[in-house]
Amino acid sequence: MNIFAERIERLRAWMSGNGWDAVIISGSDPHASEYTASRWQQIAWLTGFTGEAGDVVITAGHAGLWTDSRFFIQAVRQLEGTGVELHKTRVPDARSIPEWMSGKVRTVAVDGLCLTAASVAELEHYGFKVEDVPDLLSCIWHDRPGIPSTPVMTLSEESVGKSRYDKLTDLRKFLLLRDCDCTVISALDQIAWLLNVRGEDIDYNPYVISWLFVSQSEAVWFVRKDEDAPDPDTEDSFQELEADGISIMQYQDIVPFLKEMSEEEPQKIFLDFTTLNHTLYRNLLEAAGEENILAGTSPVPLWKAVKTPAETEGMKEAFLEDGAAMEKFLFWLDTTVHSGRTVTEWEASEKLTSLRSSIPGYRGNSFPNISAYGPNAALPHYITPESGSSVIEPHGLYLTDSGGQYLFGTTDITRTVPMGECTYLEKEDYTLVLKGMIALSRAIFPRGTAGCHLDVLARNPLWQRARNFGHGTGHGVGFYLGVHEGPQDIRQNFNSQPLLPGMITSDEPGIYREGQHGVRHENILLCREMERNAFGSWLCFETLTLCHIDTSAIIRDLMTADEIEWLNGYNRHVFAMLSPKLDEDVTAWLRSKTRPV
Amino acid sequence: MNIFAERIERLRAWMSGNGWDAVIISGSDPHASEYTASRWQQIAWLTGFTGEAGDVVITAGHAGLWTDSRFFIQAVRQLEGTGVELHKTRVPDARSIPEWMSGKVRTVAVDGLCLTAASVAELEHYGFKVEDVPDLLSCIWHDRPGIPSTPVMTLSEESVGKSRYDKLTDLRKFLLLRDCDCTVISALDQIAWLLNVRGEDIDYNPYVISWLFVSQSEAVWFVRKDEDAPDPDTEDSFQELEADGISIMQYQDIVPFLKEMSEEEPQKIFLDFTTLNHTLYRNLLEAAGEENILAGTSPVPLWKAVKTPAETEGMKEAFLEDGAAMEKFLFWLDTTVHSGRTVTEWEASEKLTSLRSSIPGYRGNSFPNISAYGPNAALPHYITPESGSSVIEPHGLYLTDSGGQYLFGTTDITRTVPMGECTYLEKEDYTLVLKGMIALSRAIFPRGTAGCHLDVLARNPLWQRARNFGHGTGHGVGFYLGVHEGPQDIRQNFNSQPLLPGMITSDEPGIYREGQHGVRHENILLCREMERNAFGSWLCFETLTLCHIDTSAIIRDLMTADEIEWLNGYNRHVFAMLSPKLDEDVTAWLRSKTRPV
Repeated sequence: MNIFAERIERLRAWMSGNGWDAVIISGSDPHASEYTASRWQQIAWLTGFTGEAGDVVITAGHAGLWTDSRFFIQAVRQLEGTGVELHKTRVPDARSIPEWMSGKVRTVAVDGLCLTAASVAELEHYGFKVEDVPDLLSCIWHDRPGIPSTPVMTLSEESVGKSRYDKLTDLRKFLLLRDCDCTVISALDQIAWLLNVRGEDIDYNPYVISWLFVSQSEAVWFVRKDEDAPDPDTEDSFQELEADGISIMQYQDIVPFLKEMSEEEPQKIFLDFTTLNHTLYRNLLEAAGEENILAGTSPVPLWKAVKTPAETEGMKEAFLEDGAAMEKFLFWLDTTVHSGRTVTEWEASEKLTSLRSSIPGYRGNSFPNISAYGPNAALPHYITPESGSSVIEPHGLYLTDSGGQYLFGTTDITRTVPMGECTYLEKEDYTLVLKGMIALSRAIFPRGTAGCHLDVLARNPLWQRARNFGHGTGHGVGFYLGVHEGPQDIRQNFNSQPLLPGMITSDEPGIYREGQHGVRHENILLCREMERNAFGSWLCFETLTLCHIDTSAIIRDLMTADEIEWLNGYNRHVFAMLSPKLDEDVTAWLRSKTRPV
Repeated sequence: MNIFAERIERLRAWMSGNGWDAVIISGSDPHASEYTASRWQQIAWLTGFTGEAGDVVITAGHAGLWTDSRFFIQAVRQLEGTGVELHKTRVPDARSIPEWMSGKVRTVAVDGLCLTAASVAELEHYGFKVEDVPDLLSCIWHDRPGIPSTPVMTLSEESVGKSRYDKLTDLRKFLLLRDCDCTVISALDQIAWLLNVRGEDIDYNPYVISWLFVSQSEAVWFVRKDEDAPDPDTEDSFQELEADGISIMQYQDIVPFLKEMSEEEPQKIFLDFTTLNHTLYRNLLEAAGEENILAGTSPVPLWKAVKTPAETEGMKEAFLEDGAAMEKFLFWLDTTVHSGRTVTEWEASEKLTSLRSSIPGYRGNSFPNISAYGPNAALPHYITPESGSSVIEPHGLYLTDSGGQYLFGTTDITRTVPMGECTYLEKEDYTLVLKGMIALSRAIFPRGTAGCHLDVLARNPLWQRARNFGHGTGHGVGFYLGVHEGPQDIRQNFNSQPLLPGMITSDEPGIYREGQHGVRHENILLCREMERNAFGSWLCFETLTLCHIDTSAIIRDLMTADEIEWLNGYNRHVFAMLSPKLDEDVTAWLRSKTRPV
C-alpha cells in the first residue's frame, strides 16, 4: 500500500472511532493563506498532491480531492496509487464539496483552524453537523512541523509611503463609520501591510504568522515571540512597533485576550468571514455574542492594492533589477544551449534563481519557478523536478514563469522562448497570445471598468481562431507581499471591483496543447490616470516589466501595424533601460534580440 | 400656471386630504410593460415627459422624475415650467427613489397595479408605510382612457415552430420541478409567446392585455372580451385556444378566480415578483397565504429568447423585406435632398413608415422612428416633432433608427447617413463606431460567454481615443414581439446570462456630441453554433440586418484590412440579397453605394 493510502486508512480508523462520517482537510492555514508553512501542508502529507489549491474529503468509502483546472494533470499524476479521486472545480456542472456530500454524510469533522468561518457556515447551511477539531490531523501526523517563527523586520515609512499609524487610523475610521469598536485581522498579507512588517514564515510570501487586534484605543499584535532566545532584529522591530503604540502579545493569547475583553466591556467587533478561521470565530461568537459581531468585507485588500507613489517607484526598481537578471539568464540559456552543452529545466531554473539572488535586496523567489520545455509547458503550473527534468533542446519553445521578492517590490514575469526552429503552430500560438497581451497592455478605459470587462481583449485574438486558455488573465501583485493579491483581477468571473489608478495587475494570456507545447506571455501593468474629457475620466496601463520579447517566433502577417509598433517600441525601451546594467556581451546579444521587426 | 404644474397641484390637494406624504407614479402598467397603452401613460399626463422609462415622486414640497441618461436632455426640455425636477438614474452616486425619500416621508401612496411586487417590497424594506390605491390617478384624471381591447389573432405552429400545447407542457414541467401546482403570468410578451397570440393593445408591441393562469390541469386566459359586440376574428382566436384546452375568462375575473381557487383547494403558486404587480400579489397573498407562494424567475423570457428555426427563418425574411424598404428610403432621401427639395426629419420618417407599410404582413413600427439630423442625432432617443422638425441638409450626418413589426418577425436598424461633405470629426466618429460594430459582429466566443464579456469589443475603438457612449451595446429582439427583450444583453452591467445559439441581439455602438452630431450603427445578430474543438464549444454571430453601410464617411486609414474585408463583403452580400427586390434605378444607385473600398 502506498504511504498516502496508508495514512488515509489511519485517518479513517480515527474517524470511525469518533463517529465522523466525513473529514474535510483544507489546503489552507489558520490565516486563509494561499501558500502555507510546512505545518499546514496537510494535503501534501495526506495525499501527495502538492498544488497550492485544493481540499480533500475523506469518508469511509471515498477519498476525493477538489481542485481547479490549473492542477488537473498534476493531480492525476500525484494521486496515482493513493485511492484519492479528482473532483474538478470551476468546470461546467462541477459539484462543490457540500453538494457532493449531501445525502451521503451527516457528521463532518473539520479542522476549524484551516477553514474560514464562511465555508463552515456554508456547510451548516447545507444541514451537516460540523464538529470543529482544531489540528485534527495531528492525531495521526506525529512528526508534524511546528508553527514557524522567523525574524521580523519593519519597512520604513519612506519605502512604503504610508506609516502604520496612518494605516491604523484609516482602519479605525472605517470601523467607526460602521459603529464598530474593533476588529480582528487574520489575513497575513493584510497584517504585514497594516503594520509595515515582513517576515519569512512562509516560503515565497514575506509574512509573519500572527493576528492583529485593532480597536479605537489600542492595537495588539499577537505574534510568535521566542522569550528564551530572542532574535535581536525581531526585538528591534517589536520595540519600533511598541513605540508606535502597538502592543506585542504571544500568538496563542488571542483567544483568552478576546474572551477577557468581551467579559469586561462588550464591544462591537467587525469581522471578515472570508478570511477569519472558523475556530477563532466560534470562540469570538461565544465570548462576544452574535449581537456584537458585524460581518463585512475587510477594506485592507483594496487599500493595499492601490499602491503609493513610493511603492510604485520601488516596484519599478524591482522590475529594472529583475529584468536585468532575466536578460542575463536568457543570454546564458541561448548561448549555453547553442554551444551544444546539455541544459535541463532544473539547471535553468537554478541559474535564474542564482542570478536573481545576487540582486541587493533580494529576499527569495515570489513563487516556485516554472521552467518548462516543450510539452511540459502545456501544464500551466508545471513543477520542475529536481532530478530527471527535461533537457532544453535547440528548437521549439521553452517557458519560464518566475519572480522575485525584493525589499522594494515583488516581481512576476513569464517569457516563452523560441529555442531555435519552431513549427508553424508554435509560431501561430506564440503570435496570437502576444497579440492578446499587447491588446490588454494598450487598453484605455473609463473609470468604473472592472477586469472582467477587459478580459476579452487578451483572449480575442485566440477566440478568433477558436482557441482559449483555462486560467485568468490577470491577478494583482503586492509590494514585497504576495505575488497574487486582490481585490481586482482580470478574468471572466463577475468581480465588480473596478481597476483603479495605482493598482498593479498581471497580463498573462496563454495557450496549452497537451503533449505538444505551451505559450504564455506575462507583463505586469500599472493602472494610471490618463485624461478627463467630455466622455469621462480615462485610465490606462503602464507596463512595468522590463525584459525583451523574442521576435523570432512571430508570424508578422498575423499582427497589425499598431501591434508591431508596440512591440518594437517595447523592445527598444527594454534595451535602453537595461543595457546600462548589462555586460558588453549581453548588451550586444540584447541589441540583436531587440532589433525592430 | 402650466397645465402639468396645475395637475400636480390637484394631486397634492388629494394627497393632503388622504394623509399621504408622497405619491409614486410609475411609467409602467399592470403588466410591467415598457411601452404602455394611453390609459397608463400617467407620467406624460401628469408631467408632460414622454420618455419610455421614468418614475415620478410627488411630495408636498417636491416633484421629481427619475430617469436614465437616454432621456436626460428630453426630460429637461419637457419638464420646463412644470416644477418637476430631474433625478438622474444609472449615474455615479445616483440616489434611488427609496433612498431619496428616506427620512423625508413616511406614508407613500402607490398605484399598486403599476408597480411590481418587488419594487413595493423594496419600499417596505426601507420602512415606508405603503398604501396601495389601484388606479390612484383616476381621482384627478377624469377623462382617462379605458383599457384597450383590440382584435386577437393567433400564429400558426408552423410560423413559430412550437405549439402552445408544447410551451404550456414545458411550463408545467418547470412548475412540477419546483413542487408548484400553478403560476400566474402577467408579462404580456410572455403570454403572447406562450399562447402564440398577438394583439394591438399597445402601440409598437403586438400584445393582448391579459393574465394567464396555468396549473397542471388547466390554463385560463383572462382577457378583454367584448360580449356585446364580439369581434369575429377574436372569436375565431378564442375558439382555437379553447380547442387547445385553454379557457377564456374576462380580464377582471382574475382576482375572484384566484380567491375561489385558493379557498377550494390551496395550491402552491409560482410567481415572478419582477413582473407581477403589487395589487395582484397582495390579493394572491391574502387568498393563498405566504406558505403557498414560491418566488422565482420566470423561465419564459429565456425560452422566448432562444428562437426556433421557424422563427429564425421568419426573422430573416423580415430583415430582407425591411432592408429593401430601407434601401428604397435611403435612395429617396439621397436623391430628393440632392435634387434641392427641402426634406424635414418628419417627412423622412413618414416616408420610411410608408415604405415599410407596403410590405405584406406589416403590422406597424416596432418603436417610434428616430429621424435626426445634425445636432439632433446627439440625442440617442430623439423624438422627431411632427411640426417644426429640422431640415436635412446636403452635408453632415443624418441618423435613422427604426423598425417594423411583421407577422413573421420584428426588425430594428440604425443607419447613420453621410448627406454630403462631413467634417473630419464626423468621419472619425463614424469610422470608430463602425469598427466597434464590426468587431462585435465578428466575435467568436466559447459557450458560457455573457454579453458583458463581449461589450468592450464594440467600445474599444472608441475607448482607444477616450471616447464612449452612454447606453448599452445590445438588447434582445423578439419574434413579432417586443423590439427590446431579455434575458440576455450586451452591456457593461453584470448580467450573467450567457449568449446562446438562437438568441437574436442588437449590435449598436454610437457616439453623441451635444450640439454637434451623433453616430450610431446598428445591425441585428443571430447567435449560432460554430464548432467544437479541444478548447471548447464555440459560438459566433450571423448578421441578419440587410442594408448597406455608407462608405463615403469612412477614414480608411483607421481601419484594418480585416475590417475593410468585412465591410466590402457585407455590402456585396446586401447588394446580392436586395437587388432582386429593387427597381432598376434603386439597384443602380445601390450598386454604386456598395462598391468596395
